[in-house]
Amino acid sequence: MAESTPPPDDAMRRLQEFLEGHGYDLATMKNVLEVIHPADLAYLIEDLGLEEKIKLFEMLGPEIAATVLSEVDPRTQAELVEHADRGKVSEAVGKMEPDDTADLLERAAPGQEATLLQNVDARHAEQVRQLMQFAPGTAGGRMTSNIVRVRDDMTAGDALGAIQGSVEAEMLESIFVTDPDGRFRGVLSLRSLLRAAKPTPVATLMDPHVSTCRPDERQEAAARIVAREDIAALPVVDEAGMLLGVITHDDVIDVIQEEAIEDLFKIAGTGGEVSARDPVLKRVFVRLPWLLPTMCGSMLVGWLMNHFSGPLGARFAVVSCFIPIMMATGGNVGLQCSTLMVRGLATGEVGPGRVMRTLFAESRVGFTIGAICGLLTGLSAHLFNSDLALGAIVMVSMWVGVSVAATAGTLLPIICTRVGVDPAISAGPFITALNDLTATVIYLSIAQAILT
Amino acid sequence: MAESTPPPDDAMRRLQEFLEGHGYDLATMKNVLEVIHPADLAYLIEDLGLEEKIKLFEMLGPEIAATVLSEVDPRTQAELVEHADRGKVSEAVGKMEPDDTADLLERAAPGQEATLLQNVDARHAEQVRQLMQFAPGTAGGRMTSNIVRVRDDMTAGDALGAIQGSVEAEMLESIFVTDPDGRFRGVLSLRSLLRAAKPTPVATLMDPHVSTCRPDERQEAAARIVAREDIAALPVVDEAGMLLGVITHDDVIDVIQEEAIEDLFKIAGTGGEVSARDPVLKRVFVRLPWLLPTMCGSMLVGWLMNHFSGPLGARFAVVSCFIPIMMATGGNVGLQCSTLMVRGLATGEVGPGRVMRTLFAESRVGFTIGAICGLLTGLSAHLFNSDLALGAIVMVSMWVGVSVAATAGTLLPIICTRVGVDPAISAGPFITALNDLTATVIYLSIAQAILT
Repeated sequence: MAESTPPPDDAMRRLQEFLEGHGYDLATMKNVLEVIHPADLAYLIEDLGLEEKIKLFEMLGPEIAATVLSEVDPRTQAELVEHADRGKVSEAVGKMEPDDTADLLERAAPGQEATLLQNVDARHAEQVRQLMQFAPGTAGGRMTSNIVRVRDDMTAGDALGAIQGSVEAEMLESIFVTDPDGRFRGVLSLRSLLRAAKPTPVATLMDPHVSTCRPDERQEAAARIVAREDIAALPVVDEAGMLLGVITHDDVIDVIQEEAIEDLFKIAGTGGEVSARDPVLKRVFVRLPWLLPTMCGSMLVGWLMNHFSGPLGARFAVVSCFIPIMMATGGNVGLQCSTLMVRGLATGEVGPGRVMRTLFAESRVGFTIGAICGLLTGLSAHLFNSDLALGAIVMVSMWVGVSVAATAGTLLPIICTRVGVDPAISAGPFITALNDLTATVIYLSIAQAILT
Repeated sequence: MAESTPPPDDAMRRLQEFLEGHGYDLATMKNVLEVIHPADLAYLIEDLGLEEKIKLFEMLGPEIAATVLSEVDPRTQAELVEHADRGKVSEAVGKMEPDDTADLLERAAPGQEATLLQNVDARHAEQVRQLMQFAPGTAGGRMTSNIVRVRDDMTAGDALGAIQGSVEAEMLESIFVTDPDGRFRGVLSLRSLLRAAKPTPVATLMDPHVSTCRPDERQEAAARIVAREDIAALPVVDEAGMLLGVITHDDVIDVIQEEAIEDLFKIAGTGGEVSARDPVLKRVFVRLPWLLPTMCGSMLVGWLMNHFSGPLGARFAVVSCFIPIMMATGGNVGLQCSTLMVRGLATGEVGPGRVMRTLFAESRVGFTIGAICGLLTGLSAHLFNSDLALGAIVMVSMWVGVSVAATAGTLLPIICTRVGVDPAISAGPFITALNDLTATVIYLSIAQAILT
């Protein structure tokens, strides 16, 4: 988990009262720490000054320190690793989950690895090394290898014994079955194990029809399988069929949250996620590139207006007043369509066999919305200016512009998916700029053809 | 789960091949059904015609039929309940999870309840009735009461026996501890149970410091606690402290997905979620209201242009060409800021104690972006028209407009949260329309003041 999440208000209030009233008194602190969840502590510690961060962190027991170190933002994590007592840090790392340790090491300065891993036992260190082979964002980079494994030639009684011997595993409710060479065979639920007689062979109890994924698959694809099948964990299996680890439901929750936020940020054109604690200039330069399509598109609209202002002469003043509504409505309808399409593709609501049908349906919706908006705008153009020709031009242009925007907004994410580009990138500023421009060209061309 | 999610392409291909090659031959069907996940079947069945839907559904065994009936979209669910063989439907309902049964009954026609529940045993029916007391969207409406419960005066040995006796529970890894009256006391993990000696009292093994939620709390709030604390289930406890049920991780995944999509749809202004199978007019009228703020805002921009075209006279043609870039850039920066703020508030990254700091930081970012965009646009206005005054007007207007848009975009979601309105609703079309208008007023006012 890269980012801590919010504490309930009462935990916050209690810690603030504590910090104000008691100072850093170890005895009182211990009492307060018992009632505050480590996830809250992680949130609170992010807001402290460097010195206070270190002080508070060094007061924590190793278990709580491990959770805090796993959950604070990367910036605070780096500060703690660099400035807090080395013994305290390596003690906390010794209690962390292998996947969190791998994340920490990937961000740590080179050469720190040995110090950080000094309290980590050999099995844990081996798991960390295995996880670090896979790129962040892949299933392999997210999986845990801390699971209960049994061989398919065992009995139910043996499997119950294996659980007893692996109580530190991340999940006990699913037991993962391999052949004697380590090739994945199926999943044995604790439920069926408890129902079975002890001599029953594991091979007859397990479910062999289980979805799996490859370690180099994108983590979103793995998360989607878990969400779809309502399973607690997804086995990660390499090309030779060897069981490497599993992706558990808590990682799936993180991935799904991250993915939904990424899509939203791409569609709204905000660039990557930045923290409020990042310097202003960094945040400016993350966002500026996303403004470029908008600025270029609308500058071209301005150039078009300039181009048409000569031929339209005295009527340009009145005609130009309807450019904002053409741009804004076309852009808005296009954004509606592209957003629905991007999410439909991401959640699978628009899956195989439904793409073309959705495209035609969205075009019909756009055509109808265009007709309604065209009637409304055309009518007000006519009433406001007592100009029937202008009203008709506005009506037809709006109708055509909105229909085109709806079709383009639906089509672009489909094309992006086909050619392997992330459809969310196309859905926001790019499609809006394109639709602004198209709507203006259509309107000014029709106006020039009829009015001059 | 309200909506089925996508099947992997190979499952899809296999079923399509089957449907084309074999027709509805029961023997072959059985073989195919064994390799296709029921979640895929739910997706596939949604796309069939009514008659085929019924035929396919009636071929399924009760277990698979139960999953399919739980996972198809509400429209297909209603069709199956109404038209498929009553015995088959009630058999499937008998195998469904209580929370899915409650969802089904809430959507079913009045009077159907008795028929639908005829194969449901008394305990399941009681759980369904309890769940239906709570509104959809609340923690109570999402929880399951199908859990392992033990009393705090039991021993570890008793608790292991209780698990053996409740193997049908939705989760076995967490055991929920109450006092003899049913008041919630804590959670006992299977891990600590397996580590303990059999005579150890449950009260000393359980974790009493566990987050809980009330049944009438919003499901998003409950999901956020589970995501934050990386727990497998959250106990739902009433005012008297009685344990009613728990929210499990698979429901949390659904809630988080739904919430992220809702926020996205509000920000992109698409209205509620609609299915591609809904009639065109329904989808048009879901989306039209979200276009109104945009259309009203941009019509007012047009009215303003008309208002200023007189005083600006011959210079209006040139001045008006920069209105699109003012509107588009202001609108885009405002959308960036409001999106970041809405998600920050939703995930808790902008939690207690960070709101004002984020507002000031975002305003500084907006001020800097405004300065850069102002310089670029002002320079091109000057170069393109050889008009230093126009260049200066464009530069200053862009700077002020973008700064105001950034501040307004950040502030509006904060105000909405304070007064209890969903901030996501304010973040999309409303703030964009407001910023379009503000940017135009600023620009045209400055232009008029200097050029006339």
